[in-house]
Amino acid sequence: MSGTVQREERKLLLFSGRSHPELAENVAAHLGTGLVPTKAVDFANGEIYVRYEESVRGADCFLLQSHTAPINKWIMEQLIMIDALKRASARSITVLVPFYGYARQDKKHLGREPISARLMADLLSSAGADRIVTVDLHTDQIVGFFDGPVDHLFALPVLADHVRGRVDADRLTVVSPDAGRVRVADHWCDRLHAPLAIVHKRRDPLVPNRATVHEVVGEVAGRVCVLVDDMIDTAGTICAAADALYAHGAERVIVAATHGILSGPALDRLKNSRVSEFVFTDTLPTPGEVELDKITVLSVAPLLAHAVREIFEHGSVAALVGDL
Amino acid sequence: MSGTVQREERKLLLFSGRSHPELAENVAAHLGTGLVPTKAVDFANGEIYVRYEESVRGADCFLLQSHTAPINKWIMEQLIMIDALKRASARSITVLVPFYGYARQDKKHLGREPISARLMADLLSSAGADRIVTVDLHTDQIVGFFDGPVDHLFALPVLADHVRGRVDADRLTVVSPDAGRVRVADHWCDRLHAPLAIVHKRRDPLVPNRATVHEVVGEVAGRVCVLVDDMIDTAGTICAAADALYAHGAERVIVAATHGILSGPALDRLKNSRVSEFVFTDTLPTPGEVELDKITVLSVAPLLAHAVREIFEHGSVAALVGDL
Amino acid sequence: MSGTVQREERKLLLFSGRSHPELAENVAAHLGTGLVPTKAVDFANGEIYVRYEESVRGADCFLLQSHTAPINKWIMEQLIMIDALKRASARSITVLVPFYGYARQDKKHLGREPISARLMADLLSSAGADRIVTVDLHTDQIVGFFDGPVDHLFALPVLADHVRGRVDADRLTVVSPDAGRVRVADHWCDRLHAPLAIVHKRRDPLVPNRATVHEVVGEVAGRVCVLVDDMIDTAGTICAAADALYAHGAERVIVAATHGILSGPALDRLKNSRVSEFVFTDTLPTPGEVELDKITVLSVAPLLAHAVREIFEHGSVAALVGDL
Amino acid sequence: MSGTVQREERKLLLFSGRSHPELAENVAAHLGTGLVPTKAVDFANGEIYVRYEESVRGADCFLLQSHTAPINKWIMEQLIMIDALKRASARSITVLVPFYGYARQDKKHLGREPISARLMADLLSSAGADRIVTVDLHTDQIVGFFDGPVDHLFALPVLADHVRGRVDADRLTVVSPDAGRVRVADHWCDRLHAPLAIVHKRRDPLVPNRATVHEVVGEVAGRVCVLVDDMIDTAGTICAAADALYAHGAERVIVAATHGILSGPALDRLKNSRVSEFVFTDTLPTPGEVELDKITVLSVAPLLAHAVREIFEHGSVAALVGDL
Amino acid sequence: MSGTVQREERKLLLFSGRSHPELAENVAAHLGTGLVPTKAVDFANGEIYVRYEESVRGADCFLLQSHTAPINKWIMEQLIMIDALKRASARSITVLVPFYGYARQDKKHLGREPISARLMADLLSSAGADRIVTVDLHTDQIVGFFDGPVDHLFALPVLADHVRGRVDADRLTVVSPDAGRVRVADHWCDRLHAPLAIVHKRRDPLVPNRATVHEVVGEVAGRVCVLVDDMIDTAGTICAAADALYAHGAERVIVAATHGILSGPALDRLKNSRVSEFVFTDTLPTPGEVELDKITVLSVAPLLAHAVREIFEHGSVAALVGDL
Amino acid sequence: MSGTVQREERKLLLFSGRSHPELAENVAAHLGTGLVPTKAVDFANGEIYVRYEESVRGADCFLLQSHTAPINKWIMEQLIMIDALKRASARSITVLVPFYGYARQDKKHLGREPISARLMADLLSSAGADRIVTVDLHTDQIVGFFDGPVDHLFALPVLADHVRGRVDADRLTVVSPDAGRVRVADHWCDRLHAPLAIVHKRRDPLVPNRATVHEVVGEVAGRVCVLVDDMIDTAGTICAAADALYAHGAERVIVAATHGILSGPALDRLKNSRVSEFVFTDTLPTPGEVELDKITVLSVAPLLAHAVREIFEHGSVAALVGDL
Repeated sequence: MSGTVQREERKLLLFSGRSHPELAENVAAHLGTGLVPTKAVDFANGEIYVRYEESVRGADCFLLQSHTAPINKWIMEQLIMIDALKRASARSITVLVPFYGYARQDKKHLGREPISARLMADLLSSAGADRIVTVDLHTDQIVGFFDGPVDHLFALPVLADHVRGRVDADRLTVVSPDAGRVRVADHWCDRLHAPLAIVHKRRDPLVPNRATVHEVVGEVAGRVCVLVDDMIDTAGTICAAADALYAHGAERVIVAATHGILSGPALDRLKNSRVSEFVFTDTLPTPGEVELDKITVLSVAPLLAHAVREIFEHGSVAALVGDL
Repeated sequence: MSGTVQREERKLLLFSGRSHPELAENVAAHLGTGLVPTKAVDFANGEIYVRYEESVRGADCFLLQSHTAPINKWIMEQLIMIDALKRASARSITVLVPFYGYARQDKKHLGREPISARLMADLLSSAGADRIVTVDLHTDQIVGFFDGPVDHLFALPVLADHVRGRVDADRLTVVSPDAGRVRVADHWCDRLHAPLAIVHKRRDPLVPNRATVHEVVGEVAGRVCVLVDDMIDTAGTICAAADALYAHGAERVIVAATHGILSGPALDRLKNSRVSEFVFTDTLPTPGEVELDKITVLSVAPLLAHAVREIFEHGSVAALVGDL
Repeated sequence: MSGTVQREERKLLLFSGRSHPELAENVAAHLGTGLVPTKAVDFANGEIYVRYEESVRGADCFLLQSHTAPINKWIMEQLIMIDALKRASARSITVLVPFYGYARQDKKHLGREPISARLMADLLSSAGADRIVTVDLHTDQIVGFFDGPVDHLFALPVLADHVRGRVDADRLTVVSPDAGRVRVADHWCDRLHAPLAIVHKRRDPLVPNRATVHEVVGEVAGRVCVLVDDMIDTAGTICAAADALYAHGAERVIVAATHGILSGPALDRLKNSRVSEFVFTDTLPTPGEVELDKITVLSVAPLLAHAVREIFEHGSVAALVGDL
Repeated sequence: MSGTVQREERKLLLFSGRSHPELAENVAAHLGTGLVPTKAVDFANGEIYVRYEESVRGADCFLLQSHTAPINKWIMEQLIMIDALKRASARSITVLVPFYGYARQDKKHLGREPISARLMADLLSSAGADRIVTVDLHTDQIVGFFDGPVDHLFALPVLADHVRGRVDADRLTVVSPDAGRVRVADHWCDRLHAPLAIVHKRRDPLVPNRATVHEVVGEVAGRVCVLVDDMIDTAGTICAAADALYAHGAERVIVAATHGILSGPALDRLKNSRVSEFVFTDTLPTPGEVELDKITVLSVAPLLAHAVREIFEHGSVAALVGDL
Repeated sequence: MSGTVQREERKLLLFSGRSHPELAENVAAHLGTGLVPTKAVDFANGEIYVRYEESVRGADCFLLQSHTAPINKWIMEQLIMIDALKRASARSITVLVPFYGYARQDKKHLGREPISARLMADLLSSAGADRIVTVDLHTDQIVGFFDGPVDHLFALPVLADHVRGRVDADRLTVVSPDAGRVRVADHWCDRLHAPLAIVHKRRDPLVPNRATVHEVVGEVAGRVCVLVDDMIDTAGTICAAADALYAHGAERVIVAATHGILSGPALDRLKNSRVSEFVFTDTLPTPGEVELDKITVLSVAPLLAHAVREIFEHGSVAALVGDL
Repeated sequence: MSGTVQREERKLLLFSGRSHPELAENVAAHLGTGLVPTKAVDFANGEIYVRYEESVRGADCFLLQSHTAPINKWIMEQLIMIDALKRASARSITVLVPFYGYARQDKKHLGREPISARLMADLLSSAGADRIVTVDLHTDQIVGFFDGPVDHLFALPVLADHVRGRVDADRLTVVSPDAGRVRVADHWCDRLHAPLAIVHKRRDPLVPNRATVHEVVGEVAGRVCVLVDDMIDTAGTICAAADALYAHGAERVIVAATHGILSGPALDRLKNSRVSEFVFTDTLPTPGEVELDKITVLSVAPLLAHAVREIFEHGSVAALVGDL
């Protein structure tokens, strides 16, 4: 018989792009390992250059990048980092995308639009990604945009347990800020055994220019309302919804969302809002200047670290995924 | 200069699988053409054999198959028909799928499930389909499952105009039968300028075995309720929702849905229901025995024919798509 | 050095679709393992739903489905099961297809036909299959339809050894029921050291409507004839061939074939035929009502189990493949 | 409206590799066009360089190369020529392969063999070929190796009509030189309304080292035998078969085959054979020294030219394909 | 005969991303058409949204985007615009990339680096681009990174003719600023019939920390030196090379380059340099503040417009490509 | 829990095509293993047949073939061998291509040319190769032609150390024989700390028919010149360059190149040249008749063996790659 034989060993390596190093380090700490030293620089004209300082040959590589601002830069950096892993003979490439960019462009609202959320999946795949780990996608269908395994983790338990610790369950009503987002609220209702309400934006046919009225569907008077969503971006919708709830007699309004994007006018709106508490996770780096007392940030690092370990050890992350 | 030159001409050919020939003939009639004669037989062991009786070389081919029962057979027949078109040198292959099978399996509810709606897109593509035309997908995101153009047509105008002709607009309330389907109802609200209500299934934590209560969120007492959804399958959810509406004082309940699958116990439930009218389209063949007075079937043939013509002539179907 | 290291272990998991569970259990028994518990149900409209009850992450998965009636349903179920394995992070997916459906549509007899046997290979690949194990394909070329490894197993030794135990070798003649199937008979001749004859269907130019005459090419008078083929479907060809052999003086006729499809009028034909024994394997489930004394069914489970084990352990199945 | 509009015109261009320019010119003459001037040279180390002397942008390109010796060189030249067409913006690339190399390696006879006939299809596709036109493939299944349209032309009418003109039909017997090639003979039987015989190579179990006996199955005494096959390579099998026929009393033996490869000892064998006539087509260039009176070469140029024109004009070549 | 027939017409549509609209409008003017009205906005978190205001169905679409700063944003915008064209049924998608970003990362200088120039080709292809038109790639090999036609245009004639108009040809020496860029200078030598010199950076082994000496290879004393390169980024290399030339007695130094990236410290360096004239083209927008008398910008719009027209009309752009 | 578990072991197998068995055996010896016994024969018409004599299932396979004359035959043999490995269930396929054929066709010099170096990468990939190991590619960009890992090894240290042992470093000048190949010379300058010169072929505008003059750029009088290149094919350029150096007063000229192709008139030119020593490696078999004293051949077998071992053991070959 020809040939040489040796025992197979597997090596887990964790990498971080430059968008959210705190979270990557936090995940590494939970895994009891370090991040692979990586050189990443911007050339003068904005082109990104990346090089790994250690061999990645034959390793199971996990690469964390959160799609925060400047979002296109960080997406491109992640693609470049994947390409470098592929060409350096990584055994497998799993991308950790705590916040998946362009997730809201998951369908065509009108003709001649892109479906950018699908494009992201194709770009990751084209660069060489084998698997995606992500948290609370805007819609569950995005999992199907990728032609391979996606571990879709849910932050609901982390967020809901925090809220449950603050409020008497009997007084809670879960509220969806929009008719199109009721699915998220529905999961909260199940977990907290609380009733549902909806803030429904309705166009007023009598008023020109398509003015909208915030109709509240369901009972909110005298209740502690938890307004829930997957992400808070400019905070316009959520703050208007909170106002509508107070106008309909809500006693108190808490906002809970996985992804605190908080871009543009968001911080001013949060400051000026009557909402008593905003609860987010750290899937995105919190803008440095956000030091409001009423903002709470919970970490998804344990969730991500658990998923990485299960993937590496061939265990199942179904417990994280399915236990709502 | 070498070579021969001639002017390019384009040829439109329309084909039908065996699942819903009435609709295909109806579409052909609107296009002013005939269906391409096609031999399709079942061998004794169930294998399907297909052959086209005319040349398809160089033609823009449109192949209509609706995914009705026995659904797996008709899907396989469509794949085989696509393969035959590809190998016979069709210039382009557009599949018309008035009802897209497995659309409800568009995400993983639990771990270790398939995403069969994505699989369908991949199978169509693998067989050789270049483009899909379909009507009222279960979720808009399915458009992104296909790596190519999808013309996603909406039957809402057809259905809603029919309802508007029957009921005084001021008395109407649009009702979603489920928290997860509010998006459809929202479109109806916009078109009919009507308020929204939701039938919310809530698990009762006090009762073991996860019994559910049908909570009605919003005002329905004394109203004419239009319960809307994309499809009615066994009719269990919709009839229970109708009962809940009557229990909360609704004056009358109408059900409107694009796809009348009506499988299993559906017909009995329709017969016994207090719903005054069921409105469907003919994206699926109506089970022959359905001769209830209270069922109305509207045709999508003009919609499909218009889309085919626009695609062939390089016009835009955006008008059909975007005009809600 | 960054990273974590652990020893690689490999896990073999065996799955069964619903088409032929007896064979799957039989293979599992030979492997000394159990089938992975799998939920598979038909929804009211015929859509299939599948979910695995245990983690498959990182496992080498073997999925058995035989393409019996209703054949299109079972093919679709297999594709859906493959998709679920892929999305659940299986390490490799090998499909066991004891009888490969649509194998007879392996070429274009006329223009504008599909090549459905190639389509099947593409669909399996598109869903996510890495490798195929199958038994006695209709033609060997089908192996080349799949862009990856195919283990093509032969039941000839099983069948031929059985026949050899029943008949005096000197009196045997191997007969092909058709000019296009002589290759199979040739292999039998080699193994049994027996002479060859052919039943040749010839169109009679003097008779209109292309009537055919069953010409017997070769000596059969006074011989024990073994009519061999890869599959018996409606049994029309084989029974007519047997009649022709008796008409030419054959003493006795035995029929041996790997795949006993036995669809449509097959059972009646078998009952009424003068053939003394029909020998099949269990690549397909035997129709329940077939309880004729003259039918013998031999099992391919040891063959399949051996192939699975060799694939998992990186041994060679060449012995099974090449030893004719 | 933005944009510019113009009428589409299509241009047919015909190209020839260096393996069989006579046939290409002959096809061009039938099409009433010329070959595109092409520079093709061998560099000193054997690398091939190709450049087209005219623009191919937007043209429907047909590229003829026959896989004659040195076969690997001409295959590689064809791949390089396809690559150049693709990069020069050809609208479509159809390869004309009158003799398809490696066709006999269409299955695995033993483990650990390639399926080179499938590899050829993949290489052509990978280089950029959209469609294949070929003549009398070794097995029909090879059509399914290519993932796109294949026009599979048959030379049988050309060959059979020639034979029919030479011999009294009543005295003809069609003979297959091998049990595995009876399919071809079967088509001849249908066309000439002649009976079938087979020369069957059988291993003699009594003689060591697997000696074979040429058994003749069927009646040949006093008959004019047409030994038919798709190709004659070294002519060993066919000449031994002819000898066996004469030994069994055949009056005369004619050999007819589409592809006259005639490599190695073939010419000597033809010279020394008792066969009265060998009939081939010009799918391959005839070795220059072949000037035997008993060799007849018929041209497939009209067949190929007809197929090219039909493809270009979107007609159907089914008539050429199906009329056996 | 079934079907409908109509004459094929082709439509050219020109689109512009937001990176360099002046050039796109200039190209449109040369083509005698307008740009397709396009909505493109940045959402608050940096995600880009694009929609075309007119139908693109069936059109040959040309999309111009130059990869200027912020380069990752504009690349992503281009990918998103391609995706939208693909999903809106464009007939073909040609991307015009006057400056191809990441072109300098066309090889691995060290292990574990990406090859970002190949990645860009893959991303464009994955999004749906069929063809690329670009100007003066950093290396010609990048053309081979794309699996399809690339029209690689050269600005050398435009630049060289300008220089020839300024300087007495007999006094010119063409200088490469770097040993790795001599190929470009070689082309200039051929066109201007001028001698060659090279500025060679050599590491001084006697000095620690790898200090480099600018060695001038070739005669430059008393000559008018044209320092040529494909791009000027931070201008460090080029200005140091100019200094070395003056130090070796050059009478005057002119710099000519296709792409004036001019990032970071470039403008200060240009201002302070003794170079008498800098000649660029407008493949990139010139930074607004660049108003130095010694900078000349020549337009490539005629070159691009000519290529677009030839592609659309199926002519040949070889004249633009090959005429050096 | 279902399933069976076992420890993973990995097996390295080394294969050789027939183009350069000495090198393959040499590599095997360095690895302490043998070559897998392989049957490879040419059929009479030139088709190649390959079969492995041992199981390759589950093994990491390394297949060495050097692209020497007859180059197209050996490339095709390699593709066929890859196909056989893929279909026999190899775990991974790494091709060792010491000399990569068609590397000089890495760009389009004119319109309507192929990019054959990219085509080679696509063909290898299409056949089933996962990874490439090669030595001194004509340009580094070719690494980017393959969509996967390429280990690009450098023979410079081997060659340069040999030269350094022969000549006093202070007297050395490194010379590029062509303006387009200065990059290679630049690496030599760095390693040997020697000055650079260039032989520049310049077209003389005064002489018709584009006669060229060999201009020497840089100082060579009284120096020992090392003319360096990646390959020597017909030796025309290199010998003319050596003549030019002697004409400009060089004391002695040594030629060093990785690949000694030495085709056509090369041997005569070497014999007649005034060059004192030619140094090559054994990436290609040396033509048997080359027994000139002044030719030195150094082996790359240790380099290749080291790379194979590192790949198999998941180490890093960066040291081989990056240490110039």
